Amino acid sequence: MYDYPEPLKNLIEAFRFLPGIGPKTAQRLAFFLLSRSNEEVEMMAKALLEAKNRIITCSQCGNLTDTDPCCICVDMRRDRTLICVVQESRDIITFERMGDYRGLYHVLHGALSPLDGIGPEELNVAGLLKRLQEGEVKELIIATNPNAEGDATALYLARLVKPLGIKVTRIGFGLPVGGDLEYADELTLSRALEGRREI
Amino acid sequence: MYDYPEPLKNLIEAFRFLPGIGPKTAQRLAFFLLSRSNEEVEMMAKALLEAKNRIITCSQCGNLTDTDPCCICVDMRRDRTLICVVQESRDIITFERMGDYRGLYHVLHGALSPLDGIGPEELNVAGLLKRLQEGEVKELIIATNPNAEGDATALYLARLVKPLGIKVTRIGFGLPVGGDLEYADELTLSRALEGRREI
Repeated sequence: MYDYPEPLKNLIEAFRFLPGIGPKTAQRLAFFLLSRSNEEVEMMAKALLEAKNRIITCSQCGNLTDTDPCCICVDMRRDRTLICVVQESRDIITFERMGDYRGLYHVLHGALSPLDGIGPEELNVAGLLKRLQEGEVKELIIATNPNAEGDATALYLARLVKPLGIKVTRIGFGLPVGGDLEYADELTLSRALEGRREI
Repeated sequence: MYDYPEPLKNLIEAFRFLPGIGPKTAQRLAFFLLSRSNEEVEMMAKALLEAKNRIITCSQCGNLTDTDPCCICVDMRRDRTLICVVQESRDIITFERMGDYRGLYHVLHGALSPLDGIGPEELNVAGLLKRLQEGEVKELIIATNPNAEGDATALYLARLVKPLGIKVTRIGFGLPVGGDLEYADELTLSRALEGRREI
């Protein structure tokens, strides 16, 4: 049976590899790119490779960055006694857009999920303990997602960190429960930050 | 204000450039790619460049191809007295999936749309006339989309081609009117092909 020429098939396959892109969308995207100029396609290919080559993980907070430490960790105007723990790098952007928070961050790269085989060793927990043991931090705000895995992770961290004499707070439940932190609007997130409570 | 590091921002921008991809989806796709291996990202970048470099337009029918003429135009088992006119290369795949059609194709790369400044000169009409003047073709099936632009194009082509003594048919209106040929199911398309009528 007739099918698309090989390079076009490969391009469609490449798009299908992305999450949430079905066969029809992949086809549309491939045809769209073929209709663009060489320069535009080369720019896109370059953006892929550059991002993959240059983006690294901050050795202090685990944020995605192109410098190590990242620009938040080296910013001396920030409150270094406060660390906000988030699941993913993209959650930091959500916090920064709100604008109310001036402390540091720590990215876990996930949440505890025994069913998926994700325990504390799979998360960036050792790095957090190392930062806390330096003694500068007074409060740890846990802003993991408001769902079962996020709550379990919060509880686990609270038990782990409290013996160090550091105040541990959980972000307030102004957040819609069961959701994803990434989609929180600035106002809800601001309320949640105000209403944080000790655990 | 804090923002993503430059290479990541560029990658998100590159995804936003694609049709139907909003800021949140672009962000998700970028983070997804960063989480994949170097090899996978390189494969994707290569697929983009290879497709753009190697895919050309068939000099006979206007189909997208990596050989010229394309594999349909050189296939001697096909009925060379029959040409089916479609708007886009991807419409050929829809026809070929149906499996009932064994003639040749001609891709217009669009439809007449005076409001958008698309006249016959912007479409692959001259190439069609050249093929028809070679004298082998007995019937021209017009399978432009069942909407205003597609119908106008069909009427225009019928008036242009009939003086050459070639039978001109329009694909039957089994197709849901107002839609897009690309989304037709095989059965509807098969009925439409059977029910074609002279214009």
